[in-house]
Amino acid sequence: MTTSQLTEQIRLKKSFLCVGLDVDLEKIPQHLLKEEDPVFAFNKAIIDATHHLAVAYKPNLAFYEAHGIKGWKALEKTINYLNENHPDIFTIADAKRGDIGNTSGMYAKAFFEDLQFDSVTVAPYMGKDSVEPFLAYEDKHTILLALTSNAGAYDFQTQTINGEELYKEVIKTSKKWNNGQNLMYVVGATKAEFLKDIRKIIPESFLLVPGVGAQGGSLEEVCKFGMNRNVGLLVNASRAIIYASEGMDFAEAAAAEAEKLQQEMATFL
Amino acid sequence: MTTSQLTEQIRLKKSFLCVGLDVDLEKIPQHLLKEEDPVFAFNKAIIDATHHLAVAYKPNLAFYEAHGIKGWKALEKTINYLNENHPDIFTIADAKRGDIGNTSGMYAKAFFEDLQFDSVTVAPYMGKDSVEPFLAYEDKHTILLALTSNAGAYDFQTQTINGEELYKEVIKTSKKWNNGQNLMYVVGATKAEFLKDIRKIIPESFLLVPGVGAQGGSLEEVCKFGMNRNVGLLVNASRAIIYASEGMDFAEAAAAEAEKLQQEMATFL
Repeated sequence: MTTSQLTEQIRLKKSFLCVGLDVDLEKIPQHLLKEEDPVFAFNKAIIDATHHLAVAYKPNLAFYEAHGIKGWKALEKTINYLNENHPDIFTIADAKRGDIGNTSGMYAKAFFEDLQFDSVTVAPYMGKDSVEPFLAYEDKHTILLALTSNAGAYDFQTQTINGEELYKEVIKTSKKWNNGQNLMYVVGATKAEFLKDIRKIIPESFLLVPGVGAQGGSLEEVCKFGMNRNVGLLVNASRAIIYASEGMDFAEAAAAEAEKLQQEMATFL
Repeated sequence: MTTSQLTEQIRLKKSFLCVGLDVDLEKIPQHLLKEEDPVFAFNKAIIDATHHLAVAYKPNLAFYEAHGIKGWKALEKTINYLNENHPDIFTIADAKRGDIGNTSGMYAKAFFEDLQFDSVTVAPYMGKDSVEPFLAYEDKHTILLALTSNAGAYDFQTQTINGEELYKEVIKTSKKWNNGQNLMYVVGATKAEFLKDIRKIIPESFLLVPGVGAQGGSLEEVCKFGMNRNVGLLVNASRAIIYASEGMDFAEAAAAEAEKLQQEMATFL
């Protein structure tokens, strides 16, 4: 999927919503626990109820790895279900991987070739040769952590390095890597005021913006400071949507929450 | 396993060798491919041949995830085999994870509770709340990336932040986190000269040192600058040991390479 196809989908659906599939067995409706694969049953119901409102889905790998082999099966089924039924939807493996060159290549193979995700999130700490193996896949997308939505982002990311904040240095440096112009970046909605400066460095790049909803970020501010002529935003909501209800109506409740966000997004498009 | 038990094992075996189980199907002896689980068959043979020479094993998760469910099965079998047969051996999940708090907690559960690893490698970019969930396990160990062995380490890790290099800032800051005194750190052997400064900040901490062998780091320099009164070093070798031969004799060849390293290590103990 190209970024222009992604923008097309955003215009078509009047939505730049990404639904985070952070599925915790302790939080899903308890009647699903008797299903053979509760996590996939939950994801399928959420996808069926929200796919017309979202342009992207983002399973966070931690929630799947926490269940070992069962978790990987649920992840495989989820990505296959998305690719088979909704090939126009952008898929993100939220894995935050990064290792020395040949090893990052193995992660790239796992997410791009075997699981057939459109994109994967990658951590920048190990530098160029830990990210370029992901960028070598021209039809895939690498989403680099720049400024994350959590409190710990202030520990290092906003510290000054070479005269400016580390996250800016990460963005500037990464642009120079092989195929660096194809990078997308994670920028937390809880730090929307930073988007103004970020857009000066990368006016054209897509940004994946977590932190709206449960974490307290404002959609209006994200759009004000972050939107570009191709929209350039994927705003993620996880818990606020998928855990909208603990009852039998969880999928309808998720759709209602997703629609609220989509309706608000439509006003900014 | 406590760090004093680890030091005890090091003194007993006269070795601080960690064997990296970075198992690539394209590099293992081809006769193993007819086994039901070639990766586990390879690991078992390597472990059987080298367990008296090594104090730690470190599977790198990328090589297992690249094979999806089959890979996770091989990983599970490997860690179970180690824990059942060699409970005195320290195990490291080389995963380089890190995410917002509740999500890092899921990764901690995956590696510490389900897979029963003694330790896991964690990336520092997202700061305090991305690492503390791992540190909450008092009988387990969190190994933070500080200065890695790859070329990309010079992109950000050695850049100056708050008047000193980022990797030093990472080490200093992380010491203040909850249970931060229990952290271990990754410091690449390819940058052994940096160990002198690092030991001034963390004289007592264990260091996991990759990059000896295939990546060109010197064991002598690592010991000269990095060893402390409790040894405080785990030196990892992966390819140089596990791919010592492509033939039927691969396990014996691996043992011979491991013994060379162990013998050299013994001279520094």
